[in-house]
Amino acid sequence: MMKLQLALDGPLHQSMALLRKVHTYIDIVEIGTPQIFQEGIAAASAYREAFADLVLLADLKIMDAGEIEAEIAFAAGCNYVTVLGVASDATVRGAVQSARKHGGKVVADMIEVTDILQRSAELLDCGVDILCLHTAYDRQKAEKAPLAALEKVKKAYPQAKLAVAGGIGLDTIDAITALSPEIIIIGGAISTAADPLRIVREIRQRF
Amino acid sequence: MMKLQLALDGPLHQSMALLRKVHTYIDIVEIGTPQIFQEGIAAASAYREAFADLVLLADLKIMDAGEIEAEIAFAAGCNYVTVLGVASDATVRGAVQSARKHGGKVVADMIEVTDILQRSAELLDCGVDILCLHTAYDRQKAEKAPLAALEKVKKAYPQAKLAVAGGIGLDTIDAITALSPEIIIIGGAISTAADPLRIVREIRQRF
Repeated sequence: MMKLQLALDGPLHQSMALLRKVHTYIDIVEIGTPQIFQEGIAAASAYREAFADLVLLADLKIMDAGEIEAEIAFAAGCNYVTVLGVASDATVRGAVQSARKHGGKVVADMIEVTDILQRSAELLDCGVDILCLHTAYDRQKAEKAPLAALEKVKKAYPQAKLAVAGGIGLDTIDAITALSPEIIIIGGAISTAADPLRIVREIRQRF
Repeated sequence: MMKLQLALDGPLHQSMALLRKVHTYIDIVEIGTPQIFQEGIAAASAYREAFADLVLLADLKIMDAGEIEAEIAFAAGCNYVTVLGVASDATVRGAVQSARKHGGKVVADMIEVTDILQRSAELLDCGVDILCLHTAYDRQKAEKAPLAALEKVKKAYPQAKLAVAGGIGLDTIDAITALSPEIIIIGGAISTAADPLRIVREIRQRF
């Protein structure tokens, strides 16, 4: 069963209003990096208070101090935290250690990783739970969702759990679901839609 | 004139108490990544309110959405923001664009950059103001402050402004000042000292 992850990046009150409309269709709520910079991890408690059953991911993109930083997310009640795939193994292992302590999970964001296949194997060895193939926001004008990378990693490591992110919307969703990743991450296509509920229902129907 | 940057990573009230003791000896106050995750960028306003003349650096370690994320720091009154050297050029240029708009500066953190000399040149081309040679916290058990990297970059790009970070304390400060980087970043050696004022004065005397 593929999961739908909604990435929230705007002001907290806007995200909260959006969630009130669509939360029943969302499997994982992502507190986006800009929102964490803006609000701090308190945003997690705010979501948790408003929607008790939410599964929360803190997109910290951890690059150093893996255990200390992951601890901030898990202590605040998050279920998933992200580390950067380009971080050192020591950092990744630190985040994994914190996750094991809290029953949480670590997602490695593969943004800017050059050798995707080799680094995927290393990250799985470090204990990472999910590999996220991700076209950076700043590259989305030039590149589409990382379909080729998703396909390549899936073929090389059929047991690995994969997530995919980067400008995904109704126009690209079918090509993605065809590869049945564990998690499909959507942000703007839902949050900036005139009628987000209609879009999220349509996306769910394509799952 | 070398500048002393104090990295603050603990709880905000502890950092505030520390700053009350030592702020007259500090050139740049760094809001560390874990502190930003914990408190959000509101920490910047708190410092600014308590110490009006502080020069503030937000250690966001930006990896994507360069302009949007740098904007969060500068809009909150920070003077410097960090991007990761491993981020894409598009992301780095986005952060630089935001800095130019606000009269702020961008520091590229060279953590996990493999080809330091080549990437330094590219980052300077992108408009980065300062290159920060940085031994990751998670690597400090195995590696000391990145003296060799600092020396190498200084020799190759004598005009580049350099910062240096990673477990620096009284035992290593002389080797570092000998290379006269623009900015020396110290965290734990000051913040966890029994008498931080004594340590910071001693460090200053070695400048």
